Amino acid sequence: MPQTDFVVRSPDYERRVRDSFARQGVMGTLGATLLRVQPGEVEIGLAWAPGLTQQHGFLHAGVVSTALDSACGYAGFTLMAPDAAVLTIEFKVNLLAPARGQQFRMVGRVLKPGRTITVTEGQAFAIDQGRETLVATMNATLMAITGRADVQG
Amino acid sequence: MPQTDFVVRSPDYERRVRDSFARQGVMGTLGATLLRVQPGEVEIGLAWAPGLTQQHGFLHAGVVSTALDSACGYAGFTLMAPDAAVLTIEFKVNLLAPARGQQFRMVGRVLKPGRTITVTEGQAFAIDQGRETLVATMNATLMAITGRADVQG
Amino acid sequence: MPQTDFVVRSPDYERRVRDSFARQGVMGTLGATLLRVQPGEVEIGLAWAPGLTQQHGFLHAGVVSTALDSACGYAGFTLMAPDAAVLTIEFKVNLLAPARGQQFRMVGRVLKPGRTITVTEGQAFAIDQGRETLVATMNATLMAITGRADVQG
Amino acid sequence: MPQTDFVVRSPDYERRVRDSFARQGVMGTLGATLLRVQPGEVEIGLAWAPGLTQQHGFLHAGVVSTALDSACGYAGFTLMAPDAAVLTIEFKVNLLAPARGQQFRMVGRVLKPGRTITVTEGQAFAIDQGRETLVATMNATLMAITGRADVQG
Repeated sequence: MPQTDFVVRSPDYERRVRDSFARQGVMGTLGATLLRVQPGEVEIGLAWAPGLTQQHGFLHAGVVSTALDSACGYAGFTLMAPDAAVLTIEFKVNLLAPARGQQFRMVGRVLKPGRTITVTEGQAFAIDQGRETLVATMNATLMAITGRADVQG
Repeated sequence: MPQTDFVVRSPDYERRVRDSFARQGVMGTLGATLLRVQPGEVEIGLAWAPGLTQQHGFLHAGVVSTALDSACGYAGFTLMAPDAAVLTIEFKVNLLAPARGQQFRMVGRVLKPGRTITVTEGQAFAIDQGRETLVATMNATLMAITGRADVQG
Repeated sequence: MPQTDFVVRSPDYERRVRDSFARQGVMGTLGATLLRVQPGEVEIGLAWAPGLTQQHGFLHAGVVSTALDSACGYAGFTLMAPDAAVLTIEFKVNLLAPARGQQFRMVGRVLKPGRTITVTEGQAFAIDQGRETLVATMNATLMAITGRADVQG
Repeated sequence: MPQTDFVVRSPDYERRVRDSFARQGVMGTLGATLLRVQPGEVEIGLAWAPGLTQQHGFLHAGVVSTALDSACGYAGFTLMAPDAAVLTIEFKVNLLAPARGQQFRMVGRVLKPGRTITVTEGQAFAIDQGRETLVATMNATLMAITGRADVQG
């Protein structure tokens, strides 16, 4: 039951998210792409690759979490002020099923926006032979940061 | 206050961990290495690289979590029975400081071993110009799996 | 997006939940009542009282969590086998707003049932002057226990 | 490995904690007492009672969490500025063993203090027939609040 009537404080929120995503070196390493950017909701996609696996050949839980963290972080970032940067304070992941599949998509949504603290939720889906399964959920708390030279955008 | 008098049920626990680690494709992608394997405790190291960053150039929280998850998972695996595989059920990460540094080490420790459920804790340290800082903590719950053809070792 | 086509393994799941709830001494202390029991979903209600508060007069986060934990635990228990008892392994609570109100309701839902491990989600709502607000979310992992004399029902 | 060289910003931190604790109605309901208050660390004790139990007669996980939350919250509060109030943003509890015993003590410690965000850790011990066991751990994130009329102390 995420909120849906979000207030957008940065009219160019989509460009801001896309620019920041492009600077996340690890997204390139994972082959992750930004599928969707809207106020309070961001979706990231990636494909299975041998360099992303755990010992049984499934997507490593850490890779699932990396994409979920970015999806949740950017979902929160869409609603932040133009001078704010976003940092994740903490997150919790539940791994519901092995991340078995050829394609994956991670959706982050804002549950509760705030001036300082934003709470988000994420879901990771695996698409295996055309069938989609919810494989993980995330709960992430973000902080809006302003006025720090080393943490911008 | 992790327990220290652990019972080892697989005499070749170290080989089992090293073999499994070598099969985790993502560890190669991160440039991560297994620094230490002892009963109930495993340490993983990795170096900063542009392909591992978030938007401000720090190590992405997901990369920190990936290495922490493997460190915690293998810490638990050192104490499991010879026929068991290990899966992470859930984890929680607190990001205490930006992961700024040239080298990183992630330590996973068993807090409470169990036949089915094992609880672990992890700590991630950043070494920046020779000074080490605790940048993240993890709390991970593992399950020992037996008798599943797709999940072994 | 909780699953809704749950398989009920104990036809008398409702009686089992109501009996177990009646044995939870703390539910009486909180003045909590079982509002709803259906497969995979349980709702608990309670009223504000001076003996349930934190220092600002709101419901203590621990009281919110106690009712959420029971709601989630019993949601999972509705789907367990007749010989199983339920124990919570871990939970995570996000406190979205001060729990200010006269009445509260906590809803627990099964996200992923399992033979051994069940994952649930909970939401706590405060009703303040007739207006309802989501004040907290929970994510709880349960384990089904069988064959232990000290842990039944 | 909590930090130990904490900076105290409110010289009367102990009185502030004791006053606030006395206003938490639920602490009276649980029969909880403040055993120890020092910079960055607070300990709370309580005794088993039939009104605090879950269905198997152990202390309810929510009661354990309530005392842990207060211990962690006040541990953080000892280090906050004189005009700050403390609110818990989120916490995670791992239940390592059934909370079986006659006496319980919950210890909260600051892991990382901060101007806005403070990260804490807690441990709950059960004393059963004179033998002490670690039964739960908590990880709690706190926020210092200033300038809100409804949230003081």
